[in-house]
Amino acid sequence: MSQKLKIIPLGGINEVGKNLTVYEHGGDILLVDCGLSFPDEDMFGVDIVIPDFTYLEKHKNRVRALVITHGHEDHIGAVSFLLRSVNCPIYCTKLTAGLIKIKLEEAGLAHIADVRSVETGQVIQAGCMDVEFIHVNHSIAGAVALAIHTDLGPVIHTGDFKIDSTPVEGDMIDLARLGELGKRGVFALLSDSTNVERPGFAMSERTVGEALLNQFRGCDKRIVVTTFASNIHRIQQIINAAVETGRKVAITGRSMENILALSIDLECIDIPPGTIIELSQVKSLPKDKVCIITTGSQGEPMSALNRMAFGAHRQVDLGVGDRVIVSASPVPGNEKTVSRMIDELFKRGCEVIYKRLTEIHVSGHACQEELKIILALTKPKYFIPIHGEYRMMKAHAELAALTGIKYKNILIPELGRPIEITEKGIKLGAAVPSGRVLVDGIGPGEMGDVGGAVLHDRRHLATDGILLVVVTMEADGSTVVAGPDIITRGFAMSRDSDAILEELRRVATETLDGCIEKKYTDWVTIKQSLRGALSGYLNRRQKSKPLILPIIMEV
Amino acid sequence: MSQKLKIIPLGGINEVGKNLTVYEHGGDILLVDCGLSFPDEDMFGVDIVIPDFTYLEKHKNRVRALVITHGHEDHIGAVSFLLRSVNCPIYCTKLTAGLIKIKLEEAGLAHIADVRSVETGQVIQAGCMDVEFIHVNHSIAGAVALAIHTDLGPVIHTGDFKIDSTPVEGDMIDLARLGELGKRGVFALLSDSTNVERPGFAMSERTVGEALLNQFRGCDKRIVVTTFASNIHRIQQIINAAVETGRKVAITGRSMENILALSIDLECIDIPPGTIIELSQVKSLPKDKVCIITTGSQGEPMSALNRMAFGAHRQVDLGVGDRVIVSASPVPGNEKTVSRMIDELFKRGCEVIYKRLTEIHVSGHACQEELKIILALTKPKYFIPIHGEYRMMKAHAELAALTGIKYKNILIPELGRPIEITEKGIKLGAAVPSGRVLVDGIGPGEMGDVGGAVLHDRRHLATDGILLVVVTMEADGSTVVAGPDIITRGFAMSRDSDAILEELRRVATETLDGCIEKKYTDWVTIKQSLRGALSGYLNRRQKSKPLILPIIMEV
Repeated sequence: MSQKLKIIPLGGINEVGKNLTVYEHGGDILLVDCGLSFPDEDMFGVDIVIPDFTYLEKHKNRVRALVITHGHEDHIGAVSFLLRSVNCPIYCTKLTAGLIKIKLEEAGLAHIADVRSVETGQVIQAGCMDVEFIHVNHSIAGAVALAIHTDLGPVIHTGDFKIDSTPVEGDMIDLARLGELGKRGVFALLSDSTNVERPGFAMSERTVGEALLNQFRGCDKRIVVTTFASNIHRIQQIINAAVETGRKVAITGRSMENILALSIDLECIDIPPGTIIELSQVKSLPKDKVCIITTGSQGEPMSALNRMAFGAHRQVDLGVGDRVIVSASPVPGNEKTVSRMIDELFKRGCEVIYKRLTEIHVSGHACQEELKIILALTKPKYFIPIHGEYRMMKAHAELAALTGIKYKNILIPELGRPIEITEKGIKLGAAVPSGRVLVDGIGPGEMGDVGGAVLHDRRHLATDGILLVVVTMEADGSTVVAGPDIITRGFAMSRDSDAILEELRRVATETLDGCIEKKYTDWVTIKQSLRGALSGYLNRRQKSKPLILPIIMEV
Repeated sequence: MSQKLKIIPLGGINEVGKNLTVYEHGGDILLVDCGLSFPDEDMFGVDIVIPDFTYLEKHKNRVRALVITHGHEDHIGAVSFLLRSVNCPIYCTKLTAGLIKIKLEEAGLAHIADVRSVETGQVIQAGCMDVEFIHVNHSIAGAVALAIHTDLGPVIHTGDFKIDSTPVEGDMIDLARLGELGKRGVFALLSDSTNVERPGFAMSERTVGEALLNQFRGCDKRIVVTTFASNIHRIQQIINAAVETGRKVAITGRSMENILALSIDLECIDIPPGTIIELSQVKSLPKDKVCIITTGSQGEPMSALNRMAFGAHRQVDLGVGDRVIVSASPVPGNEKTVSRMIDELFKRGCEVIYKRLTEIHVSGHACQEELKIILALTKPKYFIPIHGEYRMMKAHAELAALTGIKYKNILIPELGRPIEITEKGIKLGAAVPSGRVLVDGIGPGEMGDVGGAVLHDRRHLATDGILLVVVTMEADGSTVVAGPDIITRGFAMSRDSDAILEELRRVATETLDGCIEKKYTDWVTIKQSLRGALSGYLNRRQKSKPLILPIIMEV
């Protein structure tokens, strides 16, 4: 019997515990989720951010299983990176398994992965821990919460969830099972804090179906709808509205096509025969007989809808006679790109229906009343808010206290710091190696980790540009053989740029003459002198601070 | 009698007609507002964006007056830049005049400017146009709409406004005068589209006073409030709440201090004697006797509150025992910086009250019902939505049509394109020179215009970094004297970076050998060969595309 449980949030940028959580108990390690984050705006040139696997590499012999709660990128997107260091069985529901397999095939790793489909209600073993899969509602099908049965009692990890009593397909979240566990005694609850700032209840996904149908009914325009590719229930409702109003449906965008094919395979979606047509057939049908479902709900530059908005799509030419429905909210950080895309669509003459005007999107995350129900139902001894920025986890902690959990039994997690729990109490332990691995260039089979120095230079280059001073000297530092030349990139000069370049050359020449006079032979010293003289001049002349890079060639 | 009116929106990035609007009538030019925009996130290293004054420089002899609607940065922030090219009398209400004078003094231009204070109801002459100042409500005191009386009839330019029937100070917007003009016949209306996506009415500024007082009452913590420095009415309400609950008030942040001093001078604010204390006195008073009003509502890196949040403020140390009230919404684009600041405040143990949780901020812009009232009251022949992104102006056009304005008399403006209006109709003319001038480094007396090439390079450098290949050759291209050396900055390499650098050097050497063999003597050709070979190698090796800069020194 082990009397200790350690929980380590290893992934996420601002939202702790989102991408990867480590459970350690009785010498065994269980991983929950393995996703990626998208970079902050100051992470220049970074494509994705994945968890740091250093700690797991060190303890890989103790890793028993990876369990995935659902198929969103922030929960599955780093599986292919993890597999290169740590290989263990991966357990998840069938749609999630399908999505992971697509990713692994793209990365050429499908042959080494051991992905096992489970049903909700099923229990798998991860060393001394039993992991039970509990059905929840979320904006993707096949989402589950986990009950991790330990020697100390069950620990409930909700994953992303909401309570939808009228879901589009399947059942409401399994509140009965959560209540049963609560009656018997839940040791700890880790719960989703994403929407803790919103009062009330999240609207049912079904309400979107009605709002969409209203947009389809009596509309004589061609209809183009964009949403998150992974939201199968939303896509089901769009297709329902199209079928009900006599429209054929074309699908465009790689991720949308992949997920639809998978959903059809797995029978997660119900499409009457003859409904789906090729995109190339759209032109030959009357406008009011067509619906196009497309990627691009976040205004992603290369997405199908964004290309249509900017007139760069090969097959679809949007304009007057098209109604475009953006059935999604911008993820924080994407507000401006989404605004720009919507503006372009309007400029082309399209009618655009978007969130600020009508209720054509609902969130997949529980709001305050739902979170309180889960807290009251499971009555955990310990509570750890997860999936949120600090202020959200703090607000969730206050909600938990309202439902009667003692403050001393509530802990707000930190990235990389083990949460150590026993019967006696809960505390943060010393940090393990963790952090964000910034990946630049997502070619299969390779990754460039963008280090701090590279990012620091990129920030400097982005803000002020670069100024090179290049000179060829005799090896003994006695003579300038060629140069100094001044070259700039991304560097803004006041209007008389030629005069400034001439001055910079003069300053460099004088500095080199001074170095020769003082008989400096050490390149480092000469470079420092050049850098100092040029930055001093620029600071006086136009208060700018480019990255100054002296280059000395030795002959 | 002139039968033509030309209106040219010359300023703004995404929001047309925001920063500067040109009215041309009977050979005279009237300018309305002269403000700046803050850069989009892809305008790397750009500090501010100002209108392009080329057109005005060309016609400066016809410019009769600059009229300013209110003292926000996006309406006054480029006055000092304009004055260097075009000097004309500047008319505005007294608070606006005071704010402009502060800016002109900072730029060392106060002595050449002719700023004239006017009262609402007053009329000034701009050549053949009479300009009447009409009181409106907005989030800054002294805001006005304009009635520009032309030979074709009055043109109403609302500026930024809302309808506040219970304002904190002064009267409701002068609906009576707008109605009177409407009855006699308004030729054209140009109206604020900022909040056209919001149904209903904007809340009264006074409601914020009540919400603030609730936060002050019974609070035993120190209270720190941040808001927009220019929102004198909000600051008045914060001070009222402090006085009512027995707290002294300290002010911090340069812009907040400047504006408060100016408001006291102009008697725009009412502060009981003995209320204001120095920031240095705060420590000697009990927590529940102090309120600090500070800049930083947008999470600006150098603002007082942001420095407090990150523990970098000299005088104020925030933590448990402080209640921080963020009485502002993030301006689009600032969401993440504001979130980060709030998170840091929570981590220090502060209690933070912000918009998502309580109603401690209201907008200063009219919502749908207010916009319809102005349309119905002025009953203009022509309608031009301004101050908004394209989708908003489009929505505003639809509202106008609802109130009975004919579609053919409604025109959505474009940056730099003159709107030509006669009795017969309204149309867009050919574009005049316009655009965004990107200013990098705001030293007094100088500006660097960041051109397209510079910005293009900065984007490239920010995303992929730079790779230099430097070589010294005989002047005839026959021999490599030194190098090639490879130098990178901001360039991410797969883990074996030494091997890659070695390979790049080998590729460069082979390329140079090839050039010598082919007896190339033209540096441009040799540089192209180097660039081609290195980019080809990198593309194959790690799919990265740094800016490749070959440098050949000739001896």
